[in-house]
Amino acid sequence: MDGEVTEGLMCSEELSLRALRQVPHVAPGDDVAALIDAALRAEALTLADCDVLVVCSKILAKAEDRYLDLSTLEPSPAALELAARSGKDARLVEAILQESERVSRVGRDALIVRHKSGHVSANAGIDQSNVRPPHADQGSGPWVLRLPIDSDAAAEHLRQQLSATWHARIAVIISDSFGRPLRVGTVGTAIGCAGIDPLFDQRGKTDLFGRTLEHTISATADQIAAAADLIAGQAAEGRPVVRVRGLKFPPSERGASVLSRPPGEDLYL
Amino acid sequence: MDGEVTEGLMCSEELSLRALRQVPHVAPGDDVAALIDAALRAEALTLADCDVLVVCSKILAKAEDRYLDLSTLEPSPAALELAARSGKDARLVEAILQESERVSRVGRDALIVRHKSGHVSANAGIDQSNVRPPHADQGSGPWVLRLPIDSDAAAEHLRQQLSATWHARIAVIISDSFGRPLRVGTVGTAIGCAGIDPLFDQRGKTDLFGRTLEHTISATADQIAAAADLIAGQAAEGRPVVRVRGLKFPPSERGASVLSRPPGEDLYL
Repeated sequence: MDGEVTEGLMCSEELSLRALRQVPHVAPGDDVAALIDAALRAEALTLADCDVLVVCSKILAKAEDRYLDLSTLEPSPAALELAARSGKDARLVEAILQESERVSRVGRDALIVRHKSGHVSANAGIDQSNVRPPHADQGSGPWVLRLPIDSDAAAEHLRQQLSATWHARIAVIISDSFGRPLRVGTVGTAIGCAGIDPLFDQRGKTDLFGRTLEHTISATADQIAAAADLIAGQAAEGRPVVRVRGLKFPPSERGASVLSRPPGEDLYL
Repeated sequence: MDGEVTEGLMCSEELSLRALRQVPHVAPGDDVAALIDAALRAEALTLADCDVLVVCSKILAKAEDRYLDLSTLEPSPAALELAARSGKDARLVEAILQESERVSRVGRDALIVRHKSGHVSANAGIDQSNVRPPHADQGSGPWVLRLPIDSDAAAEHLRQQLSATWHARIAVIISDSFGRPLRVGTVGTAIGCAGIDPLFDQRGKTDLFGRTLEHTISATADQIAAAADLIAGQAAEGRPVVRVRGLKFPPSERGASVLSRPPGEDLYL
């Protein structure tokens, strides 16, 4: 397969998405690849070349024990000041700042930051829902869940494990639901990526009339994450893994970090 | 069907997307619904309840003859000033301003505006590629293509026509590829919507542990447009209509305008 697909994302005509039903709750230390593998087999599903697995960041964060007991934090003066401006809990703000490299915007009940990974989102992606660690009795809480340490590395790890198990060249995207400037509502967004180029660069290709296309770089990984989010479910259903089948793409070494625009090149940060 | 689905978007487990191969080039005055209908039948495809058709704005713009000969425009002083700052053609800037209600950002080779429809994008969505109107000999050009006059109305028109033809309650999304603040690459974005709520509001639902979910409004229509963009193709392949099957949703009267955040409520505009 690798030899056949070398010119970037091919435009398929059909795409099928399937959410796995049987991924169990994940606990610290769990082997997420093994859990996904078991869920696939339990549902008689396979992985084949060019399948993309979209995995909610939350289950990786739980496996990495990225829980944090806010009562253990001492807010810095900066956190206290931002807490006053935003109306947020100062300990939560402290946790957000520890995960971030800079503050992007502060508003009433809103703190938007650039995470250390480069991705800009509300609260540095720290999750306050669905958070009850197995070791909750070891702290007074409230508990929150931070993003995985390195989502690109986590994607690559899953890709390697599942590609080997299934003898298939797959890709893995780690997704999170992010709000966006200018538009209402959250969308599934790629914060980790392995095995597929996050960007599909069509520059240099010609359009229908032979004119060279300008400014046409598609955020493929974000679009795949958004598609998967439609069926991943965020509430009681909780289906954190979606298999996307039908794309054709060459191998890629690039992670999702290429999707976050450097601050100096952005008109909005 | 209408009676069964009343609580907002249902989380399906499977989603299938199919790009239509046989949509012909569209000319001013063409009946887009009839062209889509013919393409569906030529490919032995059907429309059923809760199917969503994602239609590239460009073919509607062509049918509406939204071509513009830039040589006919006299740039205003404001256009001249913005042209100097951005390095863009002053006549193109004039066309952009005529389509817009306010300027959001100006950069080198970048002019980001809030279109009259409320959607914020580069160049007010004006397209300079693939633009050669059938009546090109009536002007000296260069020609550009503006967005449809009212994409929500266009979506509703298509929805009514195709729902009647197929005796099915379908939804229609008009999509365009938009760049975004903070992130690299374009994504399919809903600028018109009919028959499905553009936003899936999960507030008030409970999460896996019975805690009420906060801040969980998904931009369903944008996610559907992003998914479709993965197979719509923008270059020589040009497949401007995608059928999305597998979602379940109640009827909705809301258009895509609810997706654009009012300037006063946005931390970035």
